[in-house]
Amino acid sequence: MTIQVLGYAAQNESSTLVPFKFERRATREDDVVIQVEYCGVCHSDLHMARNDWGFTQYPVVPGHEIVGRVTSVGGKVSKYKVGDLVGIGCMVDSCRTCSACQKDLEQYCEGGHTLTYGGIDRIDQRMTYGGYSQTLVCSEDFVLKVPENLDTKAVPPILCAGITTWSPLRHWNVGKGSKVAVVGLGGLGHMAIKLANALGAEVTLFTRSANKEQDAKSLGAHYVVLSTDEHQMQAAANQFDLIVDTVPYDHDLKPYIPTLALNGTIVLVGYLGDLSANSVPMIMGRRSIAGSVIGGIKETQELLNFCGEHNIVSEVEMIDMQNINDAYERMLKSDVKYRFVIDMQSMDKVV
Amino acid sequence: MTIQVLGYAAQNESSTLVPFKFERRATREDDVVIQVEYCGVCHSDLHMARNDWGFTQYPVVPGHEIVGRVTSVGGKVSKYKVGDLVGIGCMVDSCRTCSACQKDLEQYCEGGHTLTYGGIDRIDQRMTYGGYSQTLVCSEDFVLKVPENLDTKAVPPILCAGITTWSPLRHWNVGKGSKVAVVGLGGLGHMAIKLANALGAEVTLFTRSANKEQDAKSLGAHYVVLSTDEHQMQAAANQFDLIVDTVPYDHDLKPYIPTLALNGTIVLVGYLGDLSANSVPMIMGRRSIAGSVIGGIKETQELLNFCGEHNIVSEVEMIDMQNINDAYERMLKSDVKYRFVIDMQSMDKVV
Repeated sequence: MTIQVLGYAAQNESSTLVPFKFERRATREDDVVIQVEYCGVCHSDLHMARNDWGFTQYPVVPGHEIVGRVTSVGGKVSKYKVGDLVGIGCMVDSCRTCSACQKDLEQYCEGGHTLTYGGIDRIDQRMTYGGYSQTLVCSEDFVLKVPENLDTKAVPPILCAGITTWSPLRHWNVGKGSKVAVVGLGGLGHMAIKLANALGAEVTLFTRSANKEQDAKSLGAHYVVLSTDEHQMQAAANQFDLIVDTVPYDHDLKPYIPTLALNGTIVLVGYLGDLSANSVPMIMGRRSIAGSVIGGIKETQELLNFCGEHNIVSEVEMIDMQNINDAYERMLKSDVKYRFVIDMQSMDKVV
Repeated sequence: MTIQVLGYAAQNESSTLVPFKFERRATREDDVVIQVEYCGVCHSDLHMARNDWGFTQYPVVPGHEIVGRVTSVGGKVSKYKVGDLVGIGCMVDSCRTCSACQKDLEQYCEGGHTLTYGGIDRIDQRMTYGGYSQTLVCSEDFVLKVPENLDTKAVPPILCAGITTWSPLRHWNVGKGSKVAVVGLGGLGHMAIKLANALGAEVTLFTRSANKEQDAKSLGAHYVVLSTDEHQMQAAANQFDLIVDTVPYDHDLKPYIPTLALNGTIVLVGYLGDLSANSVPMIMGRRSIAGSVIGGIKETQELLNFCGEHNIVSEVEMIDMQNINDAYERMLKSDVKYRFVIDMQSMDKVV
């Protein structure tokens, strides 16, 4: 039996988000039904709502930083039971058979993972709708267990902003003794600082805004380097094992490469597009430029467990569903520290 | 007592190379004196002779692919004795104390390694002169043992073209089961194919010239992909664990990135300058662009030993010292398969 759900959707690229009634699929035997309690607001929600990337199909119900409680389970579900606190991130399925999926790297699924919203379900071929809604239905294999000790409302951004920075920190073996820099202090950057710090690294923030120093240090940065100050940039030469570059727009990588140590890597996690660099400092220091996207399901669970152990959550500003359009406008001005999270109880007031 | 030596030098950036008499330093206690038998002609010799990089000091005696026999040794030399067949590559010294040197990565010495020619000796502050000369004097710690079973005249390019491609093959763990591609079939490219093949990898050459297929396959390439053919490039998608890009001039990296497998790396070893790429396939496949320069002394010895065991040498065209200027002109037209090597016996005929 399908489930009637109320959500918020953009109906075309120029409309605001408005209430939208739709059906969730009848529960499959491996499905978990979740009542959404909180949903984070990622910058890509805005890009998708407005068709900035050119492939949005409408209506689109955004939201891929989802935390809620299990309300029912399919007949073959073994990992979750009614009442469990769970999360869903950017993916709700993948091919499960390719070599990437076999290595718990569903984010790199050769057949393309199924996006939590704006994707096409692999079984019924219907559009997926995201977390700006009361209820979600998802295969238990793409559902995460959320530690009960955390401040639940501040957990959702871990499922996208968190895992997007955690995955490169882990892939490039950051730990005690590592020197890590983060470029940009937004939703991703503030999580990168917290996580790198908790992993034992010495953490530096690169920023263009001198006034972010205090905030960065309170989040766990040991140093702040003003990237517009040539002297500070020169003083930072040959330092970093890993730079996590969270900047979501076109920006010059050249000043950052020489700040990498021998064998160091700058990993882009936020910017999709053409980039320019210079090979000389790369060749002369065996430095790399890399890219990384979100993380696998196993790795995301590992992150949630780590956050539970270290009491790490995101810094959030709570909003009601009805204020999503204002929140988008403020996001465009970077006017948020550091992530909006929708309190889905506000949906009860929507007619 | 200093040693009188005859070599070939460029006296300024517009002159041809001409005979040049100079002195080698009196033998230090850790020095080995070598009678040069063969010296390879690297493209960077030409760049340096003509001041293409803007930092050449004249006179310049090029040559950093040097093979010869030991004719005398300093009082504290322990690794070599008179008569040994030895080699010298691109470096004759380094700081020996920085963290890179401590890890046998002298090529990335934080104080800068001492170039075999056009460098400044760390002790007497005099200009270093290279292998286009009868005799070399070098600390035994930067001298390599050359296997006697190899065709000696074809060994010199191993010391630059060889190690420059070997080092990334080793650093990125190429072996049986690896898929490696090589961009460009010149001095470096032909060694990359031989070495990757001998390491057990499946080897593909990317080339713009369909007529190179037969040569590439005889060198050890299993496949040849015409990089100007869009269909061939698309068919090569998601293949390679490592691409060794030997092209020495500005070229678009964008077509190559999608041919990398998940976690794959394209490593630039030949091109110094600005580069452009696109982050999307990097992010969506955790692909990297990296750089790498020559290799350390220990690693170069490992390579020479490997070549001895696998009977690998370079493909060379022998020239007399007197023909070096003609050889440079032919190099500019890529008219060499695949490396010129100077027979230094020809110096005997120079007055």
